[in-house]
Amino acid sequence: MKHRIGILGFGTVGQGLTEILLKKKEFLSKKYGFTYSIVAVADFKFGNVYNPKGLDMERLLKEARAGKKFSKDIVDWDNEKMIKKTDTSVWCELTYTDLQTGGPAINHVRTALKSDKHVVTSNKGPAALFYPEMKKLADKHNVRFMIEGTVVAGTPIINLADGPLAGCTITKIRGILNGTTNYMLSEMEKGMGYNEVLKIAQEKGYAEADPTGDVEGYDARGKVTILANIVMGAGIKINEVPCEGITKITSSDIEKAKKNGKRWKLIGSVEMTDHGVKASVKPEMIEMNHPLAGVMGATNALTFSTDLLGDVTIVGPGAGKIETGFSILTDLIKIHRESC
Amino acid sequence: MKHRIGILGFGTVGQGLTEILLKKKEFLSKKYGFTYSIVAVADFKFGNVYNPKGLDMERLLKEARAGKKFSKDIVDWDNEKMIKKTDTSVWCELTYTDLQTGGPAINHVRTALKSDKHVVTSNKGPAALFYPEMKKLADKHNVRFMIEGTVVAGTPIINLADGPLAGCTITKIRGILNGTTNYMLSEMEKGMGYNEVLKIAQEKGYAEADPTGDVEGYDARGKVTILANIVMGAGIKINEVPCEGITKITSSDIEKAKKNGKRWKLIGSVEMTDHGVKASVKPEMIEMNHPLAGVMGATNALTFSTDLLGDVTIVGPGAGKIETGFSILTDLIKIHRESC
Repeated sequence: MKHRIGILGFGTVGQGLTEILLKKKEFLSKKYGFTYSIVAVADFKFGNVYNPKGLDMERLLKEARAGKKFSKDIVDWDNEKMIKKTDTSVWCELTYTDLQTGGPAINHVRTALKSDKHVVTSNKGPAALFYPEMKKLADKHNVRFMIEGTVVAGTPIINLADGPLAGCTITKIRGILNGTTNYMLSEMEKGMGYNEVLKIAQEKGYAEADPTGDVEGYDARGKVTILANIVMGAGIKINEVPCEGITKITSSDIEKAKKNGKRWKLIGSVEMTDHGVKASVKPEMIEMNHPLAGVMGATNALTFSTDLLGDVTIVGPGAGKIETGFSILTDLIKIHRESC
Repeated sequence: MKHRIGILGFGTVGQGLTEILLKKKEFLSKKYGFTYSIVAVADFKFGNVYNPKGLDMERLLKEARAGKKFSKDIVDWDNEKMIKKTDTSVWCELTYTDLQTGGPAINHVRTALKSDKHVVTSNKGPAALFYPEMKKLADKHNVRFMIEGTVVAGTPIINLADGPLAGCTITKIRGILNGTTNYMLSEMEKGMGYNEVLKIAQEKGYAEADPTGDVEGYDARGKVTILANIVMGAGIKINEVPCEGITKITSSDIEKAKKNGKRWKLIGSVEMTDHGVKASVKPEMIEMNHPLAGVMGATNALTFSTDLLGDVTIVGPGAGKIETGFSILTDLIKIHRESC
């Protein structure tokens, strides 16, 4: 079965995904019987292009890397029309994240699902703000809304819960869901203060110029909300999740924890309780022998507590060009396998 | 779709699986649409029973726990005939493991696959000795040969590689695949000698009276062989895998490692090299900051090195009554989802 892929947003992730798809074309066909053609790309900077026979992606990559507008197959359609009118079977929504409104991504997702087209996304907006609604819409149209890339793209958490842990009831989730803050806490243990470490994190590209999203825990809160809704069917809203970041952690806090054989981590947690599903993000001192304690630097990790297996922990990389590209690819393969 | 399950071997794992299936009947139906009837059970101690309308599993459990033979639905059929002639869609092969010949389990598996019935097993024999052949046979008959339970039953390694990591090329696998020896090495770090620790492990039920399979690394070698063949398609034989256990590790070795900031672990590894897939089991000193270093006690863990994500590590429990029961259940659900 040949998948007809459309890509919304041809920035880092869109280009990363394309690079992987091109490089792995033969591998994907041989190992999974997965064959594809990228027929549509919509990008506000490079333009909207469509070719039902398949776009020349090598050329598109070259043009985008050079910062040039796309030169061929240009159509004068807005994104709405691109999604609806092109002969596409699946859309990869890879535009920028807005955790306040979910826009414009949420409109793309809605239009695609209503047009009976699958959606795969790494965009936390639609997933954190509208998962239950989008899931229902996808079910109604007999297509899939896949979001592995929205929570720690380089570590396949959502698909682990859905697949290999199938049969278990997951009662609790605790994770290090933000690489930037974990890197900062790890560095502070070496003796530096918060501001000094933040500056280094910004220089290394881990933290953005405005680091609020990471250090105040908002990024982790988005992920926690998604996990609560997708893994535990909670139906909670992002603003209902109590959230505290790492800005108040001092060198002396770190030192004190160390003396008590503990370590500070920014923990996102979701728990099934007698009063429904509770979620939160806050710094916690955890015992050194806990599997999450040893997770240092920009690495992410998550422990599922389950009825049948007790704790199962997964540790891996966070988001990055190739990691997030992978998360989209793996969901595309999942859709492919389900539709065979 | 209602699955008609047959169980071969009604010992600890068979009973554990049955307990889970009974307890989770409603959950499985609601969450996965998975409905079932256990119609056949074959056990050399309790007898062979068959009821196409479904066996009374509560009664069978009660009888088995009391050490009594099954009292109803008895048939005078050998296992071969049970597998072939009963109206079953899937057989769970849960008899004892023989890593020399694979028997009698391998005959059960062959017969079931040839009868167009799926096989799910936690039995390392058929998986370690005959995986490539059984996979081919299953493909030919359009059924599945599922073996999640053969490698660290409580930590879903095989299904993680197959599903959530799909799209990656796995280039290396390194794992703590035997809980008994990991427990022993962890205890030795507290200052006890090998023989003393072995005695405690035996008292706690971690190690058997004849501990050879664990301490000489043979159990880990079986798992490594399975991983090499199923994850990397290696086609290697168990006897080709170099294997060294922990019997030569002394307290002084442990002490020396500690002084160098390292720790001994019995590591099973599989690696893609220019000269094909290489596998081995041997004690290794690993750096304290490696994710496997912090895995203590009877816990198991495994790191996949991949082309797209770098290292992804999973940590969880080993085999046990419920853990192994889970591994069978999760493969049953996988078959169910694929056949919907």
